[in-house]
Amino acid sequence: MHKICVIPGDGIGKEVVPATVKILEAVGDFEFVYAEAGDEVYKKTGKALPEETVEKCLECEAVLFGAAGETAADVIVKLRHILDTYANVRPVKAYKGVKCLRDDIDYVIVRENTEGLYKGIEAKIDEGITIATRVITEKACERIFRFAFELARDRKKQGKEGKVTCAHKANVLKITDGLFKDVFYKIAKEYPDIKAEDYYIDAMNMYIITKPQTFDVVVTSNLFGDILSDGAAGTVGGLGLAPSANIGDEHGLFEPVHGSAPDIAGKGIANPTATILSAVLMLRYLNEHEMANKIEKALEEVLAEGLTTPDLGGNLKTFEMAEEIIKRLEHD
Amino acid sequence: MHKICVIPGDGIGKEVVPATVKILEAVGDFEFVYAEAGDEVYKKTGKALPEETVEKCLECEAVLFGAAGETAADVIVKLRHILDTYANVRPVKAYKGVKCLRDDIDYVIVRENTEGLYKGIEAKIDEGITIATRVITEKACERIFRFAFELARDRKKQGKEGKVTCAHKANVLKITDGLFKDVFYKIAKEYPDIKAEDYYIDAMNMYIITKPQTFDVVVTSNLFGDILSDGAAGTVGGLGLAPSANIGDEHGLFEPVHGSAPDIAGKGIANPTATILSAVLMLRYLNEHEMANKIEKALEEVLAEGLTTPDLGGNLKTFEMAEEIIKRLEHD
Ligand SMILES: CC(C)[C@H](C(=O)O)[C@@H](O)C(=O)O
Ligand SMILES: CC(C)[C@H](C(=O)O)[C@@H](O)C(=O)O
Repeated sequence: MHKICVIPGDGIGKEVVPATVKILEAVGDFEFVYAEAGDEVYKKTGKALPEETVEKCLECEAVLFGAAGETAADVIVKLRHILDTYANVRPVKAYKGVKCLRDDIDYVIVRENTEGLYKGIEAKIDEGITIATRVITEKACERIFRFAFELARDRKKQGKEGKVTCAHKANVLKITDGLFKDVFYKIAKEYPDIKAEDYYIDAMNMYIITKPQTFDVVVTSNLFGDILSDGAAGTVGGLGLAPSANIGDEHGLFEPVHGSAPDIAGKGIANPTATILSAVLMLRYLNEHEMANKIEKALEEVLAEGLTTPDLGGNLKTFEMAEEIIKRLEHD
Repeated sequence: MHKICVIPGDGIGKEVVPATVKILEAVGDFEFVYAEAGDEVYKKTGKALPEETVEKCLECEAVLFGAAGETAADVIVKLRHILDTYANVRPVKAYKGVKCLRDDIDYVIVRENTEGLYKGIEAKIDEGITIATRVITEKACERIFRFAFELARDRKKQGKEGKVTCAHKANVLKITDGLFKDVFYKIAKEYPDIKAEDYYIDAMNMYIITKPQTFDVVVTSNLFGDILSDGAAGTVGGLGLAPSANIGDEHGLFEPVHGSAPDIAGKGIANPTATILSAVLMLRYLNEHEMANKIEKALEEVLAEGLTTPDLGGNLKTFEMAEEIIKRLEHD
């Protein structure tokens, strides 16, 4: 039995997370510890990320997070730091039945999750003059690159190419991304069985459109990963399908890439796929590969049959789509 | 007669620029002042951007730039600063005959060109610890936003929507992009006839794929514009077709977004379209709209007929494609 902290949060988080919890309950035994974060609890208590929530996150084996509204940055960036989940893992995969740029897209973006421009070091220097500090350290580079190469090695065992692509802007950011790039090729030497290549982040942002089928594992710094992964999501059906895992040495935090979507919240039509796929990533993190495979297979069937929410062209509600998945789990 | 500084530079720059110059010669009277920049002159003289080149740029009405190799950042970022070309204008347009995500894409990315992370302020703080400083100032914001709104107003006269979309990351970069966003809406008030909207840069990077037809003028900071515009180029046929204009109050610098492409340099097969379209932007900057229209029309015909270089599926050489354009100019 796994103890999971569940944070539905705001907006559609309160729809896609319960739908996902139902699916989890159908495949295994979990203890769900509920916690609050986001705009709603902020309005009630003045805190977007209450102490109690942090404690629950720290004591559980993993955290399943939905979405936060206006307070998203304060909640999620802080949680990533507190849990020291240094690797933000974002699979980019074309599923049958979903309109994608190509049907052979299958790679993973690994985003450094603790530094870059996300350190919160900003200042107003004078009237109308502001600065932010981008931090790149060798230590953080080493661990994110090792993570990326280990992932590529795992994927190679499953028949993938075994390649890591590093995206940076070392031609302009000569010192910070110069370090980033140098450490990348230093760590690459520890993995002679895995190919290593690098591109400038601007070129990379084009290649996810013009040659996405050539990538296996893509590794980049924090903000570049943020920008790149939304673009990549756009090539495989949009944010409704984009899951993410925040992984550290001690903790794991799993969340859809999308936000609280106030425009459709409350209508029960949010696509639960991104959260379900985040739960699949969570199960793999917990070494429950059989459960993960079961859910992913059922989800693939449902997507292929067009039994989806309106954003994907179907006419099901969030919970109905989850029910379809559960049906297929039971028939297994 | 216009006096133009021409810098072919390295690699395919030496193929696409001469092809474009031939086309310019076919529509008007120009004095071309040739100058050197890039890897080759660096190898010869130890300077990627010789003093003499800078002087020529300063004394001409406009600069037509090809590409630089390894030294690109030192050449082009420096030139942009020296000429104070604060607006980097990058049209994103679907041409008939070119494989695009949709055929109704037609917007312009306006990239702030003088600050952000391009100030060159970086340091190694300690062993393995590096920082870069991102600078956002009210003054630079004001002029880039006014430029964007003026452009939207011009485009509205030609039947476009009349909308400016601002892309930023104010949820994380609260001070720097907080300022960026605030100044955007302040300037928007000076243009009540133009719509104003804003998105986070990550979402924006998805929207250029999922709803590119909804944009008119997109304005963003320096590095975000760099990343976004390559992605946008990928949606309308790639860098072979992506032109850019660097515009300031005193100077204009026009260059394809692509680089020196060492892999195909010397083969005579580089696509000249991006440079030709950059020359079209230059002609508009020089108020030679008739010449600009002529070239653009001829180029559109040639693209639609598939009389292109191999990257676009045709079998013409760089110069042959230029010749086809020139033929159509003469018949006009
Ligand atoms: C909400 C925001 C702070 C967050 C980020 O920038 O990391 C989001 O865009 C994401 O990608 O998870
Ligand atoms: C060559 C490089 C310095 C340049 C930039 O980063 O601006 C290029 O990518 C561009 O987009 O013009």
